[in-house]
Amino acid sequence: MTDDTIDDLMDATYRALCKHGYAELTMQDIAEESSKTKGTLHYHFEGKQDLLESFLEYLLDRFEDRTETVPGETPDERLRAFLDELLTPSDPDSAEEFRTAILEIKAQSPYNEAYREQLREFDRALRDRIAGLVSDGLEAGEFRADVDPDETADFLVTVFNGAEARAAAVDRSPEHTKRHVHEYIDEHLRADGSINGDTAVEDEHTGADE
Amino acid sequence: MTDDTIDDLMDATYRALCKHGYAELTMQDIAEESSKTKGTLHYHFEGKQDLLESFLEYLLDRFEDRTETVPGETPDERLRAFLDELLTPSDPDSAEEFRTAILEIKAQSPYNEAYREQLREFDRALRDRIAGLVSDGLEAGEFRADVDPDETADFLVTVFNGAEARAAAVDRSPEHTKRHVHEYIDEHLRADGSINGDTAVEDEHTGADE
Repeated sequence: MTDDTIDDLMDATYRALCKHGYAELTMQDIAEESSKTKGTLHYHFEGKQDLLESFLEYLLDRFEDRTETVPGETPDERLRAFLDELLTPSDPDSAEEFRTAILEIKAQSPYNEAYREQLREFDRALRDRIAGLVSDGLEAGEFRADVDPDETADFLVTVFNGAEARAAAVDRSPEHTKRHVHEYIDEHLRADGSINGDTAVEDEHTGADE
Repeated sequence: MTDDTIDDLMDATYRALCKHGYAELTMQDIAEESSKTKGTLHYHFEGKQDLLESFLEYLLDRFEDRTETVPGETPDERLRAFLDELLTPSDPDSAEEFRTAILEIKAQSPYNEAYREQLREFDRALRDRIAGLVSDGLEAGEFRADVDPDETADFLVTVFNGAEARAAAVDRSPEHTKRHVHEYIDEHLRADGSINGDTAVEDEHTGADE
């Protein structure tokens, strides 16, 4: 497949998923959103699950490209920008539908080894990315020396998953979670112990004494 | 329906959901797990969605009963016990299957107003419960006076949703999240600023100065 064909099919998959949801989605639905025929889709993919596996892989690649350079002067700023980006849908118009489709795919994960492998890759990529940003902040002395980058990243990935699940299931906007995440960074990570912008607390862990 | 019949059918629904998942579940599957016939099920419920709506309601009632009295001497201890309980499956043998079924139902929520209403009730009940425990801790002077009980509860419900979603989708045990939650209580809530059991920090917010 050419890159253009891949982009065309993946965009079509995105639109079809948003329109029909995961459970009802057919190869025909995807073909109708693309410039290709159903026959062409079947030439490239065994079926819906095979195509969606590629779609998840494509999403991960795109996510990694999109977040390769995170804006910000300092590691703290870059960590916040990265998490804000994560909690901001790339297309607000279809955010709700897409989130629901992804939640459906997550719920299929225990029945589908290929989905599970892709979701694990994504989980791992997120954790690595966040842990890297936390480590940068430690090296720069911006974050408390007793902070564990992997544990912090693991917790933040859990928070991200929760924000997405609640947005789909009970209509709770992830915007709200952004504020909580910034507060968590203030309280859990900041070497100066700044709480909500105050610099109230100094403790013996301050500085790079590890 | 007698209470015994309800308990019988709800237990059967639980077992059938764990065995077949949500998408594949039929009224026949549920009948087979119960002492009733498929005809009896259809007498009481219009179909699978109607039965599952009652099942979600039943789960919420049971959850509320089960957590009416939370063990612990102090509000802090009760909050931790409540969150630990939340992150501990009531039946470890079927925890994974049940979590997956609930995630499937959450992903159906945007397509099903009745599920959504039940899930919202549960979300609300959780938030209220946690906010109440945080308020108790504020009144007792155990937690920092600048803590907002509703915002704290909202964040913790997001964390709980994330732990459940990751457990189903990428096999990440919620046990892990318990530790993060205790750390969050130490850092975000404790009036004495104790971090991981140390009492390292005193700040001007200590005490009930609100």
